[in-house]
Amino acid sequence: MTEAGRGADFLQLTPASAPARGLISWLAGAIRTAIIDGRLAAGTALPATRALAGDLGLSRGVIVEAYQRLADEGLVSARPGTGTRVSVLAPRDVRPVTDRERAGGWNGLPQPWRARAELDLSPGVPDLSGFPRAAWLRAERAVLEQASTADLGYGDPRGCGHLRAELTGWLARTRGLRTEPDDIIIVTGVAQALALLAQRLAAHEPADRATGHGPADRATGHGPADRATGYGPVRRAVTEVGVEDPGSRGSRDELAYWGLRPVPVPVDEHGLQVDALVRTGVRAVSLTPAHQFPTGVVLAPQRRRELLDWAAATDALIIEDDYDAEYRYDRAPVPALQASAPGYVAYAGSTSKTLAPGMRLGWLIPPPRLHAELVEAKRASDLGSPALPQLVLAQLIATGELEQHIRTVRKRQRSRRDALLGALAEQLPQACVQGIAAGLHLLITFPELAGRIEDTELAERILRAGVLVHPLSWHRQRPGVPGIILGYAVHTPDQLRAAVRRIALVMQQTSPAGR
Amino acid sequence: MTEAGRGADFLQLTPASAPARGLISWLAGAIRTAIIDGRLAAGTALPATRALAGDLGLSRGVIVEAYQRLADEGLVSARPGTGTRVSVLAPRDVRPVTDRERAGGWNGLPQPWRARAELDLSPGVPDLSGFPRAAWLRAERAVLEQASTADLGYGDPRGCGHLRAELTGWLARTRGLRTEPDDIIIVTGVAQALALLAQRLAAHEPADRATGHGPADRATGHGPADRATGYGPVRRAVTEVGVEDPGSRGSRDELAYWGLRPVPVPVDEHGLQVDALVRTGVRAVSLTPAHQFPTGVVLAPQRRRELLDWAAATDALIIEDDYDAEYRYDRAPVPALQASAPGYVAYAGSTSKTLAPGMRLGWLIPPPRLHAELVEAKRASDLGSPALPQLVLAQLIATGELEQHIRTVRKRQRSRRDALLGALAEQLPQACVQGIAAGLHLLITFPELAGRIEDTELAERILRAGVLVHPLSWHRQRPGVPGIILGYAVHTPDQLRAAVRRIALVMQQTSPAGR
Repeated sequence: MTEAGRGADFLQLTPASAPARGLISWLAGAIRTAIIDGRLAAGTALPATRALAGDLGLSRGVIVEAYQRLADEGLVSARPGTGTRVSVLAPRDVRPVTDRERAGGWNGLPQPWRARAELDLSPGVPDLSGFPRAAWLRAERAVLEQASTADLGYGDPRGCGHLRAELTGWLARTRGLRTEPDDIIIVTGVAQALALLAQRLAAHEPADRATGHGPADRATGHGPADRATGYGPVRRAVTEVGVEDPGSRGSRDELAYWGLRPVPVPVDEHGLQVDALVRTGVRAVSLTPAHQFPTGVVLAPQRRRELLDWAAATDALIIEDDYDAEYRYDRAPVPALQASAPGYVAYAGSTSKTLAPGMRLGWLIPPPRLHAELVEAKRASDLGSPALPQLVLAQLIATGELEQHIRTVRKRQRSRRDALLGALAEQLPQACVQGIAAGLHLLITFPELAGRIEDTELAERILRAGVLVHPLSWHRQRPGVPGIILGYAVHTPDQLRAAVRRIALVMQQTSPAGR
Repeated sequence: MTEAGRGADFLQLTPASAPARGLISWLAGAIRTAIIDGRLAAGTALPATRALAGDLGLSRGVIVEAYQRLADEGLVSARPGTGTRVSVLAPRDVRPVTDRERAGGWNGLPQPWRARAELDLSPGVPDLSGFPRAAWLRAERAVLEQASTADLGYGDPRGCGHLRAELTGWLARTRGLRTEPDDIIIVTGVAQALALLAQRLAAHEPADRATGHGPADRATGHGPADRATGYGPVRRAVTEVGVEDPGSRGSRDELAYWGLRPVPVPVDEHGLQVDALVRTGVRAVSLTPAHQFPTGVVLAPQRRRELLDWAAATDALIIEDDYDAEYRYDRAPVPALQASAPGYVAYAGSTSKTLAPGMRLGWLIPPPRLHAELVEAKRASDLGSPALPQLVLAQLIATGELEQHIRTVRKRQRSRRDALLGALAEQLPQACVQGIAAGLHLLITFPELAGRIEDTELAERILRAGVLVHPLSWHRQRPGVPGIILGYAVHTPDQLRAAVRRIALVMQQTSPAGR
C-alpha cells in the first residue's frame, strides 16, 4: 500500500479555487477525480481529517462529510485503526457522481453503486413502470378542456384551489385529517416542505426582511433592532432540529442546508425515544411517525402522547413526514399526528411514492400560526407550483382513479413483500426483519455481527454478488447494529427471491460461524 | 373628514400577535380589514408613518410599505400635505387581497382594482385564451408514450437533460446564446432564478452550511471562522443589488425578500444609466436589457459596452431578465447580453409570456463560477422541477410547435399593438408613447402633468371609466413624470380602441388645458 502525502498537497489542492459554498462537493470531487484518474491507487490512505482540515483552513466537519460521501459511493472505506483508504474495489471506470445522483441522496443512491448492480433494491422509489400513464393523459385532456384562462395565469402561491379542495377530502379519508382547503399549501414535495419550514425556523431576525429596503428605512436608520423594543419577548431563531436516528439522510441534509443543525434522537421498536428528545432541548423535531424510515416501526401510542405533550409544554414544532402512508398491508392505517394536534404539527406528504417522484407534487399543512409566513416563503421561492399537474392530480382524485391506482399498486406491493418475506424466512432465518407491515422497503439487522463488520462492508460484499442494498449506516448518525435495507417496490417476486439467495450466500460467508 | 387616533391604538393593534415575519402583511391586513369593515371611514387620515413606527416599535419602512400596499389596492391614497387617507373610492364590498393576488404583484395587480374594471389592460400576462391546448396535449401524449421510468424518478436538479438539450438550440436561434446543456438550470420561472441568485449573493458565511452539522464539527469546535485562515480573501456577502427605476416591482420584491436591498438606478431612453450604477457601488445589478420593463427601451450599444466593462472591472454580476424577448415587431431581436460576457451574466428566461405563467417553467444560465452552488441551491429548494412539463416543452420545441405558436401569437399581438397605436395617435395625440417595438405592453407618459397630478390618481380616474391600467409609479421607487402602462396582449383591436376612447375622455378632463 502506498501512502498519500500528508495534508493538502497530496492532491495539489488549491483552496483559492474553492467555491464559497459547496466545499464538501468541491473536496469530494477533487479526491474522486484523483481516484478515477488513478492518481490515488487502491489502498492509498487519505490524510487524517484533522490534518487536512488544518492544512486547508477548513472545519474538520467538511473533510469528514466529503470522506463520507466518497465512502457512500464505494470509492473509499474507513476501518478502525487504519483510517480512510481508497477502496480496493473502487471502480476505475466510473464517472463522477453528478448532481443528478446527488439528488438521489434524498432516498436514492450513488450512481457508481447502481451501475454495478444487477438487482437494485434501493429503498425510496416506487415501481415507476406502474405509473398510470393512460389515466394521467385522460385527466390532462379533461383539465385542458375545462381549465379557465385564470387557471393558467399567475396563480395562488398556496396552490390551485381545486386541488386543495380535493385534497381536503382525500386526506380526511386516507389519513384522518380534518383540514380546510385554505389550510393547505401545495408544495413540490416533502423536500420543499422541509425547506420552507427550515427557512422559517432558522430565520434570525424576523424584522430584517420586512425593513431591509426602501428609502424610508435608510432615511430613519431604523433597523431590525427596533423590533425588540415594542414586542416584549422577541421570538428567537431555532438553530437545531431533532431528527430520527436512524432516519432519512435526505431529510437531514435538507434541514441542514437551510441552517438547522440535525440533532440525532434514537429510535427503538416503539419509534422515536421521546425522553431522549426532551433531553436534547431542541424546539423542533422532524419524524416519520406512521412508518419510520428506515426501521419501519410505528410510533407507539404512549410515545405519541408523550410527543404531543412535549410539543404543547414547550411550544415546539413537530414536522410529520408522512412519506409513504398509503402502503399498509396488515393493519389499519395509523391516523396522522396532525389530526391530534394541528396547532403543533406541520404535516407533509407527497405523490412521490404513489405516483412518481418526478411529479414534484406534495402538500404542507402547517400550524395556523405559521401559515401566512410559509405562504410568503413559498411565494418568494417560486410563486407557487405549476398549475397543470395540480389540476390533473385534482382530477385523478375526483374521478377515483388515484384511489384505484393505489389499490392496484398496494396489491402488487403486498405480493412482492410476501415473496421477499418468504424467501428471507427460508434463506436467512437468522436475520431480524423489521418494518414489514407497511411501506415499500424492509430492514434486516444482524445483531450478532455488531462489532465484527461494518454494514457498508456487508453491502459492498452483497453488491459484489450483484445486489444493491442500502447499508443501514447510510441513514444513521451514530453507531448501531449492522443492517441492510431492502426496497421491494420495483422487482418481481422471482427477482426478489433471487436477490435473497445471493444475500444469503454472502451472509453464510460472513456470519460468525462461517468465518 | 374624521381623524384616526394617533399611533398604535387607532386600530387596537396588538403587536404581540404580530408574526415573526410578514409584518407588512400583518399591518396592511389589519388596516384593510378596518377599512372594509367601515371602522375607518372614507377620508380618515392614517397615523403618520413615523408616529406609528414609534408606537409599535417597528421600523418605519414596515409602515411605509404597508401603506404603499394599501395605496396600490386603491384603499388609501397619499397626497402631498395631507398624508395618507382612506380613499373616497375605497370599495366597501371588496374582500381582502389574498395571497393569490399578492402573487400577482409579480406582474399582476391587486384584485379590488381588477374587480372594478371592464377592460383590464394590466401588463405582464399573455393572451391565455391562446394557450396551445391541443398542441400541449399532443406533446404530453408523446411524452407519456416515450418517457422512461428514469424520467419519472428523482431527477437531475438541473432539470431534464432532454429539455436542456432542446433549449440550447432554441436559445441559440432566438437569443444568440452559445450554451451547452450542462450550463442550463431549469427553474420554475424568472422569480425562482432571482431567488436562487439572491440566496447565493446574500449568503453571509460561505462555510457555515458546510460545517454546521455533524458530530465532528461539535467535537472540534471548529466553526465558519476557520475558513478565513486558509483562503486569502474570503468572498464577502453582497447586500445590495442595483435595480432599474422604473422597473419591475415583482423583481424588486423578490430580491428584497432574500436579503438584497434593491438600489434604484435610473433608466432613460437609452436604458439603464450605467454611470449612475457605477456611482452606487453595488456589485450586482438586475435588468431587462432587451425590452426594459416598463419603459420598453432597449439598452443602447454604448450602454451595453459600459455595463460589461463595469462588470469585468469590478467582478460584478449582471442578472439579465429576458422576460419577453420573443415579441418584437419592427426590428431584429437584440442579442442577449449573456452572449457577450457569459462569465459575468446570469441569464434568466421563462415560458410565462410565450405559453402561460401557470406553467412555472423557465431557465437560468449562470456564470460558470456560480453554477455548482446554484444547482445545489435549486436541489435544496425543491430537488428540481417537475418532469412531465419539462418533457412536454422539450417536445414542443423539437416539433417546431412552440415556434409556430409564438409566430401566430406575435402576428396577433402586432395587430393589437397597431390598433392601440392608431387609436392613441388619433385620440391622445399629446401623449408620449414609448416601448412600442416589442413586448406586450407600452408606456404613455404625460410630462406636462408632472407636479400637477399623481399617476395613481390618473389611473384611478381611468378606472372609474372602466379601464384598468397600471400607474407608472407602481413600478418606480423615486418620483418621476406621471405615466400609465397599457398591456395589449389580452384584448381585441375593438376593445383596445374603446379603452383608448375612455382614457382620452379622462385625459381631456385632466389635462392642464381642460382644467
